[in-house]
Amino acid sequence: MFRITPIKNGLCAIDGIYADGVNAGFKKDGFDVGFIRSEKIMNIAYLFTTNKFQAAPVKYVLNKNIEKTNFILANSKNANALTGEEGINDIKEILSFLNEKIDAINPIMSSTGVIGVRIDKEKIKSAIEKFDFNAKNSKNFAKAIMTTDSFYKEIAFEVEGNFGKFKIAGVAKGAGMINPAMATMLCFIVTDANVPREKMKKILSEINDNTFNAISVDGDTSTNDSVFLMSTNEGDYEEGAFREALNQVMLKLATDIVKDGEGATKLVAFNVKGAKNKLEAKIAAKALANSLLVKTAIFGEDPNWGRIASTIGASGIECDENTLSIEIGDVLIYDKGKNCFDKVTEEKARKVMKKDSFKIEVDIGIGDGKFRAFGCDLSYDYVKINAEYRT
Amino acid sequence: MFRITPIKNGLCAIDGIYADGVNAGFKKDGFDVGFIRSEKIMNIAYLFTTNKFQAAPVKYVLNKNIEKTNFILANSKNANALTGEEGINDIKEILSFLNEKIDAINPIMSSTGVIGVRIDKEKIKSAIEKFDFNAKNSKNFAKAIMTTDSFYKEIAFEVEGNFGKFKIAGVAKGAGMINPAMATMLCFIVTDANVPREKMKKILSEINDNTFNAISVDGDTSTNDSVFLMSTNEGDYEEGAFREALNQVMLKLATDIVKDGEGATKLVAFNVKGAKNKLEAKIAAKALANSLLVKTAIFGEDPNWGRIASTIGASGIECDENTLSIEIGDVLIYDKGKNCFDKVTEEKARKVMKKDSFKIEVDIGIGDGKFRAFGCDLSYDYVKINAEYRT
Repeated sequence: MFRITPIKNGLCAIDGIYADGVNAGFKKDGFDVGFIRSEKIMNIAYLFTTNKFQAAPVKYVLNKNIEKTNFILANSKNANALTGEEGINDIKEILSFLNEKIDAINPIMSSTGVIGVRIDKEKIKSAIEKFDFNAKNSKNFAKAIMTTDSFYKEIAFEVEGNFGKFKIAGVAKGAGMINPAMATMLCFIVTDANVPREKMKKILSEINDNTFNAISVDGDTSTNDSVFLMSTNEGDYEEGAFREALNQVMLKLATDIVKDGEGATKLVAFNVKGAKNKLEAKIAAKALANSLLVKTAIFGEDPNWGRIASTIGASGIECDENTLSIEIGDVLIYDKGKNCFDKVTEEKARKVMKKDSFKIEVDIGIGDGKFRAFGCDLSYDYVKINAEYRT
Repeated sequence: MFRITPIKNGLCAIDGIYADGVNAGFKKDGFDVGFIRSEKIMNIAYLFTTNKFQAAPVKYVLNKNIEKTNFILANSKNANALTGEEGINDIKEILSFLNEKIDAINPIMSSTGVIGVRIDKEKIKSAIEKFDFNAKNSKNFAKAIMTTDSFYKEIAFEVEGNFGKFKIAGVAKGAGMINPAMATMLCFIVTDANVPREKMKKILSEINDNTFNAISVDGDTSTNDSVFLMSTNEGDYEEGAFREALNQVMLKLATDIVKDGEGATKLVAFNVKGAKNKLEAKIAAKALANSLLVKTAIFGEDPNWGRIASTIGASGIECDENTLSIEIGDVLIYDKGKNCFDKVTEEKARKVMKKDSFKIEVDIGIGDGKFRAFGCDLSYDYVKINAEYRT
């Protein structure tokens, strides 16, 4: 038995964790470079993009095989991706400058923004000069990693049970390029739970499958996607409680990312069940979350169930129109090959789709594979934001 | 040696071929039901959608395994898809009504439009009543199959050489749901070339791979995609000439479909070469044609080459940033890991992107696999058309 309670102060709710953001001139206004610092050296687990062109910060961490750290440096507006050896050298120079200012053990740099442009080292150094390493402004760090995000994403919980207690907190950024194989996103989670490092890696990867790997804004996978989980190991620990708390942190941040998808006006859960197996359910759920025709129908609040069915049929999974069922919210539209779409159900489904958030449930009707994906609609603003970005 | 010359009158340029369109009330104005009729019984080859939920007209042809026909009946505004046994029975009833009016041998029905709604048999019958079976209005047939298409698509050639001569003509419709595994489209090609039926099937399938299977508007695959190739076998034949002429017909109709993609303002050829093999080149080329970030950058006329690189990296193919090269038009932007993007190349690339039609060339630099895919941009109008379609 355990109780999970939301708490304030984001990452800085954890004892010995400091964080802040400053403006280094990458953005006209607002924070663009930030840090997370820990008094104690933390164990770290991470998951990175499956894009073959991993950005320099991702390669740097993988090459060094970092297992412990006490410092994260992050920036927005420049991804330091497709920058070759020079991109890696830029990171080394920046981190060695950082070490002149504070004792950073295996510091990690994490970047998001435009691809293919060398990072402005002087701007990052000027940010480091400005850092107050004893600041406890988690929110400012969350803001510093925002690109086209319209709100900062932060959550913190205290977890108490018979085993004792621990805290866990996370921040994330998303917005565009949210993809079918881990979102275009950065996520930093800190806990004091005394979770063994190997467990930490395993649990992070498992929960990631149903959270960040289940979301989609536009089906594109960035060069920089990163999820970091760090622990000071100073609190108590119980696996079940830790799993549930980490799941809540990651699900909240993942759905926040979809809600804040570029131009998105609606968050939709695509629940696929009855597929041959989990993989097929995942393929179908993600196909729905990525279909332009489904996404535009959602934007138009149009219960065009034919597009849902057609997308399932095109996804390549095993299916049969005589076992297929489709519900929009709780409104049954198509029932094992029987079309229930009439004036009454259409009106009901339309009402569901007017909400900011709803579910679309598809039963393939042939097995017990299930998967829930999260997606959003495709609006004029998505086109506007992405046609004008960079210039 | 042979000469291919464009000729007039579309399908009706072929001797003994009649075609027309009428208004049956599916559309407010304009043709919505049409026919193609041949005096002589024709050999027929066809390729259908890979969507698991094949529409009733597709199932009907496959179930009957039709090899010869003299009549095609086609309609827009209703796909007769996801309509179960009733959908098939509706076709049977309509075609038996047709046979009261004219001697149709294995008549074929082909439909496009909204999914999941029973077809209005009385409207189709009223159209049949109106048909002038001796009309030679190929253009009207081409218009009758249009849905959100903004122009009708028709082409005809006469081919002459030492072997003698033949004619070949085609009409198509496309617009939305143009996908990565054969476009959402209907295409009807008629020839008098004396091509053996088995050759006809083989050549159709091979050319389809590089034409209709190489185009994408929105990455969705419909329930109704169909390509029909029919021959009266009354002309002469030489394989090389026939291949080349069929290729020109299909490439013209396929690129017309992309140009007329919903809301599209630009036609882009994505040439991928140097991939491990042809399949990997195809995967990468189609990933580019389907990427929302690439499509919106094209709409914004922004040479955001980082999105091109990132899409290649995310496509899952074997690649390395040190062997990758990217050209927009003939402007080299990224050369085997070396970034050539500066004020000068940016301005040149921007100029290329201002054109209605241009190419993006990606050299993976590791093998000799190549593939050319055709795609278009993603505009506000795509969202508008698809958010408002059906209602």
